[in-house]
Amino acid sequence: MHAAEQKMLTTDIPEGFEPLVIPPGFVHHCGGFYLHAERPVLAVRITSAHLNSLKTAHGGFLATLADCAFGAIFKRQLGLPVPPVTVNLNVDYFSAVREGDWVEAYVEIHKAGRTFANGSCMLKVGELPMLRASGIFAVPKSKV
Amino acid sequence: MHAAEQKMLTTDIPEGFEPLVIPPGFVHHCGGFYLHAERPVLAVRITSAHLNSLKTAHGGFLATLADCAFGAIFKRQLGLPVPPVTVNLNVDYFSAVREGDWVEAYVEIHKAGRTFANGSCMLKVGELPMLRASGIFAVPKSKV
Amino acid sequence: MHAAEQKMLTTDIPEGFEPLVIPPGFVHHCGGFYLHAERPVLAVRITSAHLNSLKTAHGGFLATLADCAFGAIFKRQLGLPVPPVTVNLNVDYFSAVREGDWVEAYVEIHKAGRTFANGSCMLKVGELPMLRASGIFAVPKSKV
Amino acid sequence: MHAAEQKMLTTDIPEGFEPLVIPPGFVHHCGGFYLHAERPVLAVRITSAHLNSLKTAHGGFLATLADCAFGAIFKRQLGLPVPPVTVNLNVDYFSAVREGDWVEAYVEIHKAGRTFANGSCMLKVGELPMLRASGIFAVPKSKV
Repeated sequence: MHAAEQKMLTTDIPEGFEPLVIPPGFVHHCGGFYLHAERPVLAVRITSAHLNSLKTAHGGFLATLADCAFGAIFKRQLGLPVPPVTVNLNVDYFSAVREGDWVEAYVEIHKAGRTFANGSCMLKVGELPMLRASGIFAVPKSKV
Repeated sequence: MHAAEQKMLTTDIPEGFEPLVIPPGFVHHCGGFYLHAERPVLAVRITSAHLNSLKTAHGGFLATLADCAFGAIFKRQLGLPVPPVTVNLNVDYFSAVREGDWVEAYVEIHKAGRTFANGSCMLKVGELPMLRASGIFAVPKSKV
Repeated sequence: MHAAEQKMLTTDIPEGFEPLVIPPGFVHHCGGFYLHAERPVLAVRITSAHLNSLKTAHGGFLATLADCAFGAIFKRQLGLPVPPVTVNLNVDYFSAVREGDWVEAYVEIHKAGRTFANGSCMLKVGELPMLRASGIFAVPKSKV
Repeated sequence: MHAAEQKMLTTDIPEGFEPLVIPPGFVHHCGGFYLHAERPVLAVRITSAHLNSLKTAHGGFLATLADCAFGAIFKRQLGLPVPPVTVNLNVDYFSAVREGDWVEAYVEIHKAGRTFANGSCMLKVGELPMLRASGIFAVPKSKV
């Protein structure tokens, strides 16, 4: 990637979003995720590193974005030391996401019980719904 | 990673598996996938690049493995020019997958209709079930 | 059931809801469903005929309510001659629904394509979310 | 229904199946379920009381059959006093089930942990797969 492109992508982040701090591992390979400071939204700018053979965002990458959005929002809203463990992730794909798209994953928490927590997540490009996920998570016993 | 470990991991591929040929994009960032020459199985050796903050394989990576296993097996068994498009992916996580594990994703095709196709996928480490996925795919109209 | 109870249940239907007209078959055995004249909501009053051995509404009944809500709302909003055919139904159960509860199933349509349609459905008792479903439906080719 | 048909349907139960004993409530309205004495299978003969407006078995009924199959098999195999509580039910519909069909729901238990249990269920008519479900269940704390 050229320095010019890098600058364009880095600066083209809507106001209110901040880079998500992530430990080494798989999500480092998924490109930069941005968490909104107030709203329950995790977002990413789609690059060529996210595509499949049809040149649209890979379904596995989008599932990863949804899973990370659940993790980041549950962690922040429930005050957990780490993201909760995913028990079930169900993903419905509506439309193809393309290179250059700014994708926002909106998380809604439906239940946060002692044993598990439930939420749903809508991925949008602008106002267009692209994917909907629901998730079930095991809540850690202690919160240290 | 030490050179010795690299050699061990690279050579420690069970008989019958061959590297999956993949175009540039997201799956290149997911590490090497291996397709069995005859059985409907896609497999991978878990490295530090696949982990989450708990040091187990990331749920998004495992969902990606399942999605790719569906794609590769449907493509081969139905004679498609490209993998079918994922319409729904539902994933149940049973147990944590760890660094060094050789994970095999077994795909079973339940239906291959004119419009959509259905399958399920079991991820195993040895004989232990780690994750179960079901998927719905849109079958391309023409097969070139 | 006593005549007095029957009268109470029949009359205790919130304004704007009208009995859903259903053909003979399974839904006749599920008790009376009510469709809101304007809002995308199907509702029911839980009776002893809807319970499981724990004296809460049976999970299969609630899944049926969600499936019928999708069918009725898609039929009305897309102008279909019959409800679309269910391809996938995913249901997350949050809390127990009890006898006497008035349950409202709110349907949101996410996509209505030529082949598939997608929606999600939230079951509520008052403002409490009890269950969330997502569904994928095959759209009939002709609408005659 | 004629008396002759009634006799035929009632007696046409494959060897090894016994009527499932069920408490009053929703499942009583779903017609007779039969549990195999040894194999993890719950079955039913489809009658006109199970149909939708297209004269095929209602999706909600088939989801109920899958949910009851999970409940009966988990209860028997784990020695529970009551069926476990359904947390998630995901259903993929493959083909239409018709009046007169003898439908068998085969349950496979994947995990039975202290908190959650996971299984999948295949509905078949003869050898034809009609529906596949996966389920997550909360295991009761005490087993009396």
